[in-house]
Amino acid sequence: MMRATVIYGERDIRLDEVSDPELSTGGDAIVRVVAACVCGSDLWPYRGVTPTEHPSRIGHEFIGIVDRVGADVTNIAPGDFVIAPFYDCDMTCVNCLNGVSTSCLNGGWWGADDRLGGFADGGQGEWVRVPHADGSLVKVPVQPTDEQLPGLLTLADVMGTGHHAALSAGVTTGSTVVVVGDGAVGLCAIIAAKRLGASRIVAMSRHADRQALATTFGATDIVEARGDEGVAAIKELFDGVGADCVLECVGTKESMDQAIRSTRPGGMVGYVGVPNGGAELPIRRLFGTNVGVNGGVAPVRNYIEELLPEVLSGAINPGLVFDLQLPLAEVAEAYAAMDERRATKVLLRP
Amino acid sequence: MMRATVIYGERDIRLDEVSDPELSTGGDAIVRVVAACVCGSDLWPYRGVTPTEHPSRIGHEFIGIVDRVGADVTNIAPGDFVIAPFYDCDMTCVNCLNGVSTSCLNGGWWGADDRLGGFADGGQGEWVRVPHADGSLVKVPVQPTDEQLPGLLTLADVMGTGHHAALSAGVTTGSTVVVVGDGAVGLCAIIAAKRLGASRIVAMSRHADRQALATTFGATDIVEARGDEGVAAIKELFDGVGADCVLECVGTKESMDQAIRSTRPGGMVGYVGVPNGGAELPIRRLFGTNVGVNGGVAPVRNYIEELLPEVLSGAINPGLVFDLQLPLAEVAEAYAAMDERRATKVLLRP
Repeated sequence: MMRATVIYGERDIRLDEVSDPELSTGGDAIVRVVAACVCGSDLWPYRGVTPTEHPSRIGHEFIGIVDRVGADVTNIAPGDFVIAPFYDCDMTCVNCLNGVSTSCLNGGWWGADDRLGGFADGGQGEWVRVPHADGSLVKVPVQPTDEQLPGLLTLADVMGTGHHAALSAGVTTGSTVVVVGDGAVGLCAIIAAKRLGASRIVAMSRHADRQALATTFGATDIVEARGDEGVAAIKELFDGVGADCVLECVGTKESMDQAIRSTRPGGMVGYVGVPNGGAELPIRRLFGTNVGVNGGVAPVRNYIEELLPEVLSGAINPGLVFDLQLPLAEVAEAYAAMDERRATKVLLRP
Repeated sequence: MMRATVIYGERDIRLDEVSDPELSTGGDAIVRVVAACVCGSDLWPYRGVTPTEHPSRIGHEFIGIVDRVGADVTNIAPGDFVIAPFYDCDMTCVNCLNGVSTSCLNGGWWGADDRLGGFADGGQGEWVRVPHADGSLVKVPVQPTDEQLPGLLTLADVMGTGHHAALSAGVTTGSTVVVVGDGAVGLCAIIAAKRLGASRIVAMSRHADRQALATTFGATDIVEARGDEGVAAIKELFDGVGADCVLECVGTKESMDQAIRSTRPGGMVGYVGVPNGGAELPIRRLFGTNVGVNGGVAPVRNYIEELLPEVLSGAINPGLVFDLQLPLAEVAEAYAAMDERRATKVLLRP
């Protein structure tokens, strides 16, 4: 038996004793989790915004050490320190090869019970069975230090997701950028925009601690206002028309509206916030202003190789988004701290 | 007095006697129209889909010869043969310089009565007052032959609009492309995709004559099916997942749905069809598949210099979209022929 996080309903998170995972296909690996974390998107079921119909394993970001592998696995071996993306994928199908591993024809999601080879564990536990281990897992070329763990863990989701927002919006040398959302993804999007060459980066944030981190990561301006006032503040910063690229890192109707209206004619919104509520896109406004909308569930697996060396060298430091570390036994407190905004992102150690 | 086209209501198009235009700002030009045409978007008010509340001048595509200019005009002189885009623009404001002259801070639309310097004529008439003549008009470096007129006229709208669809979808060397819509814009989008280097171009068309022209322009495949069957046919052509770039050149909810579902994960829809009806975009589908949507009212003025030499040399031949030529006196028949699909696009000569 092992311990793993299970959500029972609104604000009801428990650490349960569950069965140990077993190798069930030739392509599996069993990974011992070294660090996991709570995602902003985990808060939607936690808050009851999306209903929990029956107790379910939860968590989709983890790094760890390979314990054993199936007979067909060739890229990964026991003892390897690995990063798992927030989904599994084979990296050989047409969608993976097109750079969109989140649309892997054979992949799936952690915690789902209809997966290849049987149940796939959630990430907030002691052990995880990883299907498609050769495709899903990326080996870290060194045994990382304790200080490197937070940065490596961001490659499982938030750093790659921020990078996807920036790529989707077309950020390139000289771009003007606005980031909507100051959660872990928004903060990582600032890092991504800076490394892609943005000339100016505005963080829309109302929290002093997050504003400070945004500035550390490369934000050149902070805007606290929202709604009409926020749009006016952004336009004033950028020739009266808005920014080239706006990175939407929240997922509400209000944040998408803020993003679209902050983009200059001909500019692009890159969005990675999981759309919540009835957020349809206002096509007539988009058409009239030639503002594009591009993005989606981020194919972070495709980005790990590019970002990993910079995390290891310290060239980028996305691990700073973790402002609380707790033992896995306190997972319920981890959710509460993020829900109540006492923490931006919580790292859990089994 | 001169003759100009006026729409009175559903299927009520008349050629009226109206006042001659006059220079009213230092930046105006008065242009004698040599050729004009009817746009697919003119059919929306013609069919009563968009209501006509009072008699209005109509038409927005024309080429002609400059008769006289205001004191401040320096780029254009009497006697010049010029192309006008389907709007006027100064080409000096931030949006024009960003390549989005349809969002010119000082520009406007033909036929509107609240324009700089007073009323701006529609294009389907004998004369037009052109505000911002230095920005709006592009001089053709030769006096064109009669055979060159149709091609030059397409630069006022449909060829530039097809080009915008292709650019918005990111068509580049090797791209796989689907074009939804076989009207003049869709056909021009095929030309645009080919010259940008597309490796394969599917025309979705059910009309034999348009299929033939699509093939002449560079389409490699024709798909007649629509809806679920059309999506299945497109996926079968492209690795089971869809095309890299899909150009939406109609503007209905059905055509946008067709476009989105024909795009592979991570691909892009470039859309230029004026959105009609309640066409909101399905953000959850877009998010889940990383399909982007980019485009809008095409800034064709920004494209004329690039496309003009190829039209003059015959390297591209978008003028073939005109399959009927009529004297301006028969403008009502021109609308009826397009409405009843007896013609793809009608050229009018005053």
